[in-house]
Amino acid sequence: MTPPGRGVRTVAGLLVAAALAAVFAAPARAAKMFSLSLDDVANGRAEVVDLTHDLREGTPIFPGGIPFTLEPLTQLSDGYYMNSFVSGEHTGTHVDAPAHFGKGLPTVDEIPSTNLVSQGILIDVQAKSSANSDYVLTLIDLQEWEKANGRIPAHALVILNTGWHQRWENPDRYLNRDESGALHSPGFAADAVRYLLKERNVNGVGIDTASIDPGKSTAFEAHKAVLQGGRYGVENLDNLNVLPGRGFSVVVAPMKISRGSGAPARVLAIVPR
Amino acid sequence: MTPPGRGVRTVAGLLVAAALAAVFAAPARAAKMFSLSLDDVANGRAEVVDLTHDLREGTPIFPGGIPFTLEPLTQLSDGYYMNSFVSGEHTGTHVDAPAHFGKGLPTVDEIPSTNLVSQGILIDVQAKSSANSDYVLTLIDLQEWEKANGRIPAHALVILNTGWHQRWENPDRYLNRDESGALHSPGFAADAVRYLLKERNVNGVGIDTASIDPGKSTAFEAHKAVLQGGRYGVENLDNLNVLPGRGFSVVVAPMKISRGSGAPARVLAIVPR
Repeated sequence: MTPPGRGVRTVAGLLVAAALAAVFAAPARAAKMFSLSLDDVANGRAEVVDLTHDLREGTPIFPGGIPFTLEPLTQLSDGYYMNSFVSGEHTGTHVDAPAHFGKGLPTVDEIPSTNLVSQGILIDVQAKSSANSDYVLTLIDLQEWEKANGRIPAHALVILNTGWHQRWENPDRYLNRDESGALHSPGFAADAVRYLLKERNVNGVGIDTASIDPGKSTAFEAHKAVLQGGRYGVENLDNLNVLPGRGFSVVVAPMKISRGSGAPARVLAIVPR
Repeated sequence: MTPPGRGVRTVAGLLVAAALAAVFAAPARAAKMFSLSLDDVANGRAEVVDLTHDLREGTPIFPGGIPFTLEPLTQLSDGYYMNSFVSGEHTGTHVDAPAHFGKGLPTVDEIPSTNLVSQGILIDVQAKSSANSDYVLTLIDLQEWEKANGRIPAHALVILNTGWHQRWENPDRYLNRDESGALHSPGFAADAVRYLLKERNVNGVGIDTASIDPGKSTAFEAHKAVLQGGRYGVENLDNLNVLPGRGFSVVVAPMKISRGSGAPARVLAIVPR
């Protein structure tokens, strides 16, 4: 058993801070990141940003999906309040498991839990997406991002902020269908995804649209590259404008559906204050 | 933007470790806990322990609840594999939100996300529970635990390991009904829960049975103390035997059901290796 700890750790923290200040005055950022501990949420030095949309009726649904519906079971007057519900696996903020596109590959309950906790990387493509609803992040874009922002670490979750999360309350604008019925929303190019898997060993990729592929895709190349590569995708993320470009953690927590091709997920970012 | 970081932080880590060793040779445990950073999962210094049971048919269900059922929508031969599902809010490993028992109190989507990341405390009552299926953890038990193991920190999730998670595959043994139909499983006493809320400011309490109250309870005093106190409960936890008594973090990630009284949750512990 560990000692009571709280007081000890506070004193320890001060001593370490002093030691750090003495040892290196220069790389203050590195010291700051190192000192972000798992207790910092309780200690108030980190905040939890919820990247999850509410599950309810009337939200955007990718074609073929099943909306979330709540069915009342009991009310407080019965003793306690309780509901049941119906949902698709790919409804709301959700995870795509490898089995969604890959025969014999892990279902959502089989994704190794260690891969659900990642260093977060946020790539802001709002300007390009606003100018072009069919924008795709290519390998060249990704390499330019790394040149400006540093190498993407192993076991990261790489998230595209297209700005689409701000359209969530308007399903027509979010899905953005043309006259032929094709969707138009930004996404990942397959070459960018392959680079992230093979050269950067990411845990997964995420986006604030209904698909990691551009909406108009019918070949689902980004899906195939991610999922057949054994990693996961996260779609319909929210609140991306609150995040920094890096230096945060993300916990992706899908419902543990046995044999699930995916599942609604709670996605929480832990961000230094 | 922060610098690439990986190499810098490794060097920083070594320097800090050296500084720590010099500053205090004695309280090694406190130093170890402090050095557990949010990147340690990616770095291999911490592991993620999944405290969640699979969602599938045939698992134990508290009376009045709705089992989880999966409905196939498409197969890989259709392009991709996908299902829909039906579930109760209180099915499988799940969260009870304050609104489950408290008028006007937060629904599951309204629990502050900061309270979903906690320091974990595990109280092992397997021996007492094995000897007495109706065992309740009292205030006296809790104070004895603190005397032996140290003060419970603020914003903790306090989990009872009753051993019941090992009965999950046998719903009859898990619910443990007597001839009259009453359930028999261990739980929290209301005085212990009130102490945890008022004196220790916990985020919530958890257990590896179907109820934080003892199974035979009809007054649901522990539920009322936790939920009407504005905190949450977590029920049907798994894998508790893998956890230490303290020195780990827990992320409780319920589905974000709008107006939900609770929700199936993914519960992940982050534990130093």
